[in-house]
Amino acid sequence: MDYLADERKKAEFDVDEMKIIWAGSRHTFEVSDRISKLVANDPGFRKDNRTMLARKELFKNTLRKAAYAWKRIHELHLSEEEASRLRFYVDEPAYTDLHWGMFVPAIKGQGTDEQQKKWLPLAYKMQIIGCYAQTELGHGSNVQGLETTATFDPQTDEFVIHSPTLTSSKWWPGGLGKVSTHGVVYARLITNGEEHGIHGFIVQLRSLEDHLPLPGVTVGDIGMKFGNGAYNTMDNGVLRFDHVRIPRNQMLMRVSQVTRDGKYKQSDVPRQLVYGTMVYVRQTIVADASCALSRAVTIATRYSAVRRQFGSQNGGPETQVIDYKTQQNRLFPLLASAYAFKFVGEWLTWLYNDVTQRLQASDFSTLPEAHACTAGLKSLTTTATADGIEECRKLCGGHGYLCSSGLPELFAVYVPACTYEGDNTVLLLQHIFTRVVQYGKHFKLLDNKMSCGLSLLVLVARFLMKTVSQLGSGKKPLGTIAYMGKIEHLMQSRCTVQKAEDWLKPSQVLEAFEARAVKMAVSCAKNLSKFTNPEEGFAELSADLVEAAVAHCQLIVVSKFIDKLQQDIPGKGVKQQLEALCGIYYLYLLHKHQGDFLATSYLTPKQAALANDQLRSLYTKVRPNAVALVDSFNYTDHFLGSILGCYDGNVYPKLYDAAWKDPLNDSVVPEGYHEYVRPLLKQQLHTAKL
Amino acid sequence: MDYLADERKKAEFDVDEMKIIWAGSRHTFEVSDRISKLVANDPGFRKDNRTMLARKELFKNTLRKAAYAWKRIHELHLSEEEASRLRFYVDEPAYTDLHWGMFVPAIKGQGTDEQQKKWLPLAYKMQIIGCYAQTELGHGSNVQGLETTATFDPQTDEFVIHSPTLTSSKWWPGGLGKVSTHGVVYARLITNGEEHGIHGFIVQLRSLEDHLPLPGVTVGDIGMKFGNGAYNTMDNGVLRFDHVRIPRNQMLMRVSQVTRDGKYKQSDVPRQLVYGTMVYVRQTIVADASCALSRAVTIATRYSAVRRQFGSQNGGPETQVIDYKTQQNRLFPLLASAYAFKFVGEWLTWLYNDVTQRLQASDFSTLPEAHACTAGLKSLTTTATADGIEECRKLCGGHGYLCSSGLPELFAVYVPACTYEGDNTVLLLQHIFTRVVQYGKHFKLLDNKMSCGLSLLVLVARFLMKTVSQLGSGKKPLGTIAYMGKIEHLMQSRCTVQKAEDWLKPSQVLEAFEARAVKMAVSCAKNLSKFTNPEEGFAELSADLVEAAVAHCQLIVVSKFIDKLQQDIPGKGVKQQLEALCGIYYLYLLHKHQGDFLATSYLTPKQAALANDQLRSLYTKVRPNAVALVDSFNYTDHFLGSILGCYDGNVYPKLYDAAWKDPLNDSVVPEGYHEYVRPLLKQQLHTAKL
Ligand SMILES: Cc1cc2nc3c(=O)[nH]c(=O)nc-3n(C[C@H](O)[C@H](O)[C@H](O)COP(=O)(O)OP(=O)(O)OC[C@H]3O[C@@H](n4cnc5c(N)ncnc54)[C@H](O)[C@@H]3O)c2cc1C
Ligand SMILES: Cc1cc2nc3c(=O)[nH]c(=O)nc-3n(C[C@H](O)[C@H](O)[C@H](O)COP(=O)(O)OP(=O)(O)OC[C@H]3O[C@@H](n4cnc5c(N)ncnc54)[C@H](O)[C@@H]3O)c2cc1C
Ligand SMILES: [Ca+2]
Repeated sequence: MDYLADERKKAEFDVDEMKIIWAGSRHTFEVSDRISKLVANDPGFRKDNRTMLARKELFKNTLRKAAYAWKRIHELHLSEEEASRLRFYVDEPAYTDLHWGMFVPAIKGQGTDEQQKKWLPLAYKMQIIGCYAQTELGHGSNVQGLETTATFDPQTDEFVIHSPTLTSSKWWPGGLGKVSTHGVVYARLITNGEEHGIHGFIVQLRSLEDHLPLPGVTVGDIGMKFGNGAYNTMDNGVLRFDHVRIPRNQMLMRVSQVTRDGKYKQSDVPRQLVYGTMVYVRQTIVADASCALSRAVTIATRYSAVRRQFGSQNGGPETQVIDYKTQQNRLFPLLASAYAFKFVGEWLTWLYNDVTQRLQASDFSTLPEAHACTAGLKSLTTTATADGIEECRKLCGGHGYLCSSGLPELFAVYVPACTYEGDNTVLLLQHIFTRVVQYGKHFKLLDNKMSCGLSLLVLVARFLMKTVSQLGSGKKPLGTIAYMGKIEHLMQSRCTVQKAEDWLKPSQVLEAFEARAVKMAVSCAKNLSKFTNPEEGFAELSADLVEAAVAHCQLIVVSKFIDKLQQDIPGKGVKQQLEALCGIYYLYLLHKHQGDFLATSYLTPKQAALANDQLRSLYTKVRPNAVALVDSFNYTDHFLGSILGCYDGNVYPKLYDAAWKDPLNDSVVPEGYHEYVRPLLKQQLHTAKL
Repeated sequence: MDYLADERKKAEFDVDEMKIIWAGSRHTFEVSDRISKLVANDPGFRKDNRTMLARKELFKNTLRKAAYAWKRIHELHLSEEEASRLRFYVDEPAYTDLHWGMFVPAIKGQGTDEQQKKWLPLAYKMQIIGCYAQTELGHGSNVQGLETTATFDPQTDEFVIHSPTLTSSKWWPGGLGKVSTHGVVYARLITNGEEHGIHGFIVQLRSLEDHLPLPGVTVGDIGMKFGNGAYNTMDNGVLRFDHVRIPRNQMLMRVSQVTRDGKYKQSDVPRQLVYGTMVYVRQTIVADASCALSRAVTIATRYSAVRRQFGSQNGGPETQVIDYKTQQNRLFPLLASAYAFKFVGEWLTWLYNDVTQRLQASDFSTLPEAHACTAGLKSLTTTATADGIEECRKLCGGHGYLCSSGLPELFAVYVPACTYEGDNTVLLLQHIFTRVVQYGKHFKLLDNKMSCGLSLLVLVARFLMKTVSQLGSGKKPLGTIAYMGKIEHLMQSRCTVQKAEDWLKPSQVLEAFEARAVKMAVSCAKNLSKFTNPEEGFAELSADLVEAAVAHCQLIVVSKFIDKLQQDIPGKGVKQQLEALCGIYYLYLLHKHQGDFLATSYLTPKQAALANDQLRSLYTKVRPNAVALVDSFNYTDHFLGSILGCYDGNVYPKLYDAAWKDPLNDSVVPEGYHEYVRPLLKQQLHTAKL
């Protein structure tokens, strides 16, 4: 029986069409639908027991699943696209993620043609398994601070990889702890006694025969991480090198080379190509945010429609908690955000492809913007998603705290997205940097020293400098910063909203977000100009700069959502629903950041209040469609992994049955009763052995 | 070696004196200091392996610790105060928490003198172990919706306790799953075919001989909860009754009675006494918030002083991340909040005692305010604390994601505080309700039907009505709502701040927070008055009402912090530090809720910007004292349970050593390699059994 059938009947739009919008294309929908069901129906991919397993069992089971997935991929002759969808729906962090997601792309991006020819076929067949070993115990965000050394020995034509200190131990790389046979290891290159900064090296770590670490290699797992199941299926590792030798041709040499006689050379290939990998990884992180958030929202929405609390009249059923405005006010903006992130992710994928094509044609003009966009949007969407998942958990009341709700694991497995690939705050700084530099001639801030303070930006800095100098020449800002060209207008204009519905006009909304972003950036610039030492000013005002960066990134998300709505959107009522969600997204942001909008005097308090009124009406509009809007994500019960979010809404019997499967219920009287409980009850503790 | 010695030398205040301020008194400090060290030095209370244990081992170990603690309490002849400190520092959720924290207080609060005489001695000696069984699978917040029935059988002079539906299964009670012999069970009382609402009953659940569930009782654990270790040491339980009979005198009869012939009677004791338990529990929850937050802040502060990233000049050491303004802007407001919550908690304890004394003297006049205060502040402080712990975790970068950082477990074990004892949002509604009712004659909102929509307030509603009618008679608002008496003045006044330092004047700040709170409440009232059906208006505007309640609660916290500073505070520099923290607390709130302050036109954008400038200066003032300010909490390394937060700051070797203890490192080649990794590497998966 479908306990949510009534909800589904209420929907005012064509769910099947919305599924295609969400998937991005009919083709993607069909592949996803088919593969997700394939995984869901295969008991080999079962995951409902994951949170109960102790570490070793859990990990062993992940090894099994990874192998099984690979086997199925071959047996079913899946295409590359299908294979990657399958890994995705298996939904369990594993060494394969790093192998396919970091190791292979690093070789592709940083290896010479020759190196690619040698290593990629091995990696593609998984005859070797690789990880991405950058972070160390003492250095994460500051890549330039890494301590591992790679010293060229001209005698033997080898590099000596070495961990000179405890803090230089590699620490965190996924797949390293117990599985990887190889790693792309980042180390400080030294030739002829001279340092040449951080470079990547392909290093074999374990024997391909017996899996034992090679001589000079100490390697292990770094221990338990946040949550049950969650990321503990992954063997994040620690790694120390004691003068480990590798052939010279295992330095990734696309960008710079060491010659036979130990000379260090830069190739013609511009250094920023090194950033291909990073931009690529971040772009996928942005796309993943909408997925994680939409999963959490699906659970919270379905459960909110099932859960009833209070308000029964004359013995009738109680009110569904989704009907409470407080619940809607917490839930619907997250539903809207999931859609918003989806569309901005789609656009980023386009942008990334565009940049890649340009790079291949030696056109580097859009790299800074792409770099900044991926960084800023990565930061914005991951933070909002992590917070959003936890909010969804709270929206489920007590039951959301049970692992069987799926939400604790979803949260725990998701949150590191805020941390890896550059801490969010650092990324935001990096973001505003690129932006300020691109536009403002009056923000003469950046120099090389500065950029060392900014994490991954170090190598990009020179490129930025070039951009700045070009901007001085009257070049117009383009792309996501085009609005800065309207600065004169935006600084003066005032919001013309007079009634709540005026807030439904996209042009009105865009101007509000543009005006806010410009004014915050200009205000930061003014404050910065008061410092004689710009570095000092930047440090002192960094919190404000972060806020300005957020304002800019939110504008991007809002404008991409609005752009999406300009497209032809088929299907009965689909466009109307998306319009309502778009409205919820920007009006919720407007309310949340009311202070920004009011402080820049673009809005009056009255207009802000009207925005809030309009927001409430949109909640009412979305309410009957809420369950159908999460059905449109087309997630299987297997993928959701949540009793509270199950499709049929039959929550209570399933919760009840799941409870009894906990190992604690193996026996009625618990282990430890005789030793520790009975003596206490019987007042015999003084003789008990405890 | 003390790696934080330099930091400690920088401190500009007397840390020993601050420890006493934090503890509340010299006596409390001495007891806490002694007992915390006793626990820390006893290997029987070791907890560093907790996150690695599977559920059964973990639980068994908790049973051992609980018994061992009880044994030590006796051996050492600890006083009640010392015993409760000891349980606190053992720092592991266990059935004893519910026994002492809910079961005993429920009997004390709701039992007759006779019942207390019978049951309390058994409970005090732990000859019986009790839990608090209220929540059901289908009903949590809405206590009046509970389905378990207690039907009086005049034939046998017994109640028949029964679970008529699946959703009526008791679900969540801590200690119920595997340990409790008894429970205070809440059920719908039926006598002579008539219903009399929800009442508490003492029900024996398990045999005192063999610990088996009594006939008609089905009981078990509800399964894994969020996090490693964390709350999984607790046996939250499920419980079903199949016509279980208990003697009539096991209904808790202080407030209402069932006579031998089945008549239902209310005693003279006012019903609101029932709420004693709840108010008591919430007040401790508020006090605990400052403890949990201060632990997280200690870890993040010490680690931020140890961690260096970027900004090294000429090969010198890199910058401590605590010196970055973005880090300070995230961390120092949390440090200030920990102190703020401490002081408001202290005040609440006073208020609670005051109310209790009054109740004993049959003076019920302050109960609504106490009830509202505990509810509102509970909600505010738990939300801020949960978010704050997670923020501290993120402030530690990647390493915060390791269980050995202590932060994941602190978060997971803390978050349910936002959920139990009334979901936070519901509590906030309840809060503003009480407030609006207390003051505004023009808010004629409350009636009995309404209050059923408001969770635990149901039984308090009548009492509130009485308060309203008294207020109509020109009685002045007192206590935390006294400021409402200045409504005329506050509605018109404007902030007079002209330079940043003006924001250091307490009177200035108080007025700003009062004006904001009053104006938001009045604006809600105006909007409510537009609805012909006030219930509807309340529902529709509930999100705004919640914001107004938050504004009121924040005012309470700010004003209690300011009050604290009016007291005589001994010790070199102590008062100055607290003043700086107080400033950070309110200026951070002011910035965060800038929108409220600007929307109510109390502030100009310029004045808000000055507040922000002042906030930055205060960060600079607190920076050299940060480590000493967390030292003042006087937490042992055992209690903190965090490598990143260890007192001596010797983080890296400890992290490194801890990693190797993970079970995955028991063998160099992991279990599963031969079955699942080797066949993959060797391209032999087709024949592998997976
Ligand atoms: C689950 C997980 C998987 C990972 N997988 C891999 C992997 O496969 N391979 C790999 O190489 N690494 C991996 N990492 C490591 C990851 O990339 C780093 O943890 C991440 O880059 C953050 O760096 P950090 O831990 O050094 O943080 P830190 O830089 O130490 O951050 C600590 C704090 O300092 C602040 N801070 C630092 N610098 C500045 C600054 N200049 N200005 C202002 N504030 C600053 C940060 O904002 C943060 O609040 C993984 C990490 C996790 C958690
Ligand atoms: C770790 C833990 C320990 C616990 N220990 C005990 C125990 O020892 N004994 C015991 O009896 N119980 C215990 N509980 C249960 C706890 O008291 C309930 O979970 C809590 O009261 C919340 O109720 P709920 O789960 O029914 O949430 P729900 O009321 O179902 O909440 C779901 C959502 O609906 C919203 N909502 C509900 N009503 C309204 C309304 N009227 N207006 C607007 N929104 C509304 C909530 O805000 C929330 O977002 C425990 C729970 C946990 C998590
Ligand atoms: Ca607000």
